[in-house]
Amino acid sequence: MNDLTPTPKNAQDALARLHAVIETRRQGDPETSYVARLFHKGPDAFLKKVGEEAAEFVMAGKDLQHASDDELSDRRHKLVGEAADLWFHSLLGLAYFGITPQAVLDELARREGTSGLEEKAARKAQAREASGE
Amino acid sequence: MNDLTPTPKNAQDALARLHAVIETRRQGDPETSYVARLFHKGPDAFLKKVGEEAAEFVMAGKDLQHASDDELSDRRHKLVGEAADLWFHSLLGLAYFGITPQAVLDELARREGTSGLEEKAARKAQAREASGE
Amino acid sequence: MNDLTPTPKNAQDALARLHAVIETRRQGDPETSYVARLFHKGPDAFLKKVGEEAAEFVMAGKDLQHASDDELSDRRHKLVGEAADLWFHSLLGLAYFGITPQAVLDELARREGTSGLEEKAARKAQAREASGE
Amino acid sequence: MNDLTPTPKNAQDALARLHAVIETRRQGDPETSYVARLFHKGPDAFLKKVGEEAAEFVMAGKDLQHASDDELSDRRHKLVGEAADLWFHSLLGLAYFGITPQAVLDELARREGTSGLEEKAARKAQAREASGE
Repeated sequence: MNDLTPTPKNAQDALARLHAVIETRRQGDPETSYVARLFHKGPDAFLKKVGEEAAEFVMAGKDLQHASDDELSDRRHKLVGEAADLWFHSLLGLAYFGITPQAVLDELARREGTSGLEEKAARKAQAREASGE
Repeated sequence: MNDLTPTPKNAQDALARLHAVIETRRQGDPETSYVARLFHKGPDAFLKKVGEEAAEFVMAGKDLQHASDDELSDRRHKLVGEAADLWFHSLLGLAYFGITPQAVLDELARREGTSGLEEKAARKAQAREASGE
Repeated sequence: MNDLTPTPKNAQDALARLHAVIETRRQGDPETSYVARLFHKGPDAFLKKVGEEAAEFVMAGKDLQHASDDELSDRRHKLVGEAADLWFHSLLGLAYFGITPQAVLDELARREGTSGLEEKAARKAQAREASGE
Repeated sequence: MNDLTPTPKNAQDALARLHAVIETRRQGDPETSYVARLFHKGPDAFLKKVGEEAAEFVMAGKDLQHASDDELSDRRHKLVGEAADLWFHSLLGLAYFGITPQAVLDELARREGTSGLEEKAARKAQAREASGE
């Protein structure tokens, strides 16, 4: 995990920070903390939320597909919110079983590297973007 | 995509890099590129994958819940893989509609800040972790 | 809804009766009727329930797969309950858009007939069962 | 499967017949029969299909919600097809674990009876429909 910078000031660290928040809250009072309540109830409580949030992501995607120009901005914002819900509840599931978001990021990075040619093209595109082209 | 930082050397950047890969591949040949194929087919193609991958995440969570000690390691690895699939296909959905993973990370960070007291506790926990306690 | 037979004494009629119940309740008071409340909120309310109930069906299926002999009976009962939830909320979705369960049963019957050879074998099996063999 | 009536002439019997078809096909050749293939692969194969088909039902519901008058008929037909897919794959899951559709219909009927007042109203509405009012 040598790609982790020692100063968590960027967005990877959004996920690492969120994981740390979850780790703290899971030990909280189920009466007042949403995370503690879901963990107290056990896996079914957050797993069914993953199913529900996936459905909401799908609905928001369809609403965006069918959006008029006036609706685009609101509906893009909605899809972002549903993605956040979906990722958050999958993070809860991972945390429950002692898995950090970094493990998922590593897996995604590993797969990204499995297709050399396409990856090279991607690096070029990214270099162009990084250089502001 | 001007939210890509010029120094993509850490794991946030795993998501930003993956987004850049998707942006490149979507313009590829639907015959040879999975991403190009899904984008060519339109929203239903990747949205239904989000539903399917959510179901697979749920199944992997249940398998892990019921795992014997011998099975734990394999099943944790399986859950990580399903989370990667779920995040990847939700990233495809976001990219299709011109949304970067950073927007979702920002939304997650924004929410994290909505509960001051719990967040403070979380920062303390994170500080402890960062300092190796 | 002319597909409602006047003598609802068997199980097809379980679905037709349930459809009739939904049709009545949708006009009820959203404060006191669950169906009226979901219809009042609009499609997202029951569509997201379909996603959630599908996840619960999947979880119950996994619990049953991993059940010990002692747990089998309870977990089979649980799966039946989740199937009922899933079918009920899909019936709500159909009713909202003016579609009867009979339309789905007709579609299922139509497909069943698409594979002649296998269907013939099935009819034989059913005949054997019907005759108590 | 002693819940199969000897005179399968109505639609309940659509589900009972479909169950009988599944029971026959599950013993078929995984190379040529879809049902045999899913059963051979085990629970994950059909459970993930339940998740995918739920997502497709949700998408078809959203398409119908956003339909223009010209599109209504096609999209209603699409939703019926997705409901058939969803019910069919949940029937596969039930059959795998030795559960008949009748068990689900019985559970739905049992619940329907739990709310006396609303049910009475429903019966009245059904009587009106049955009498052609």
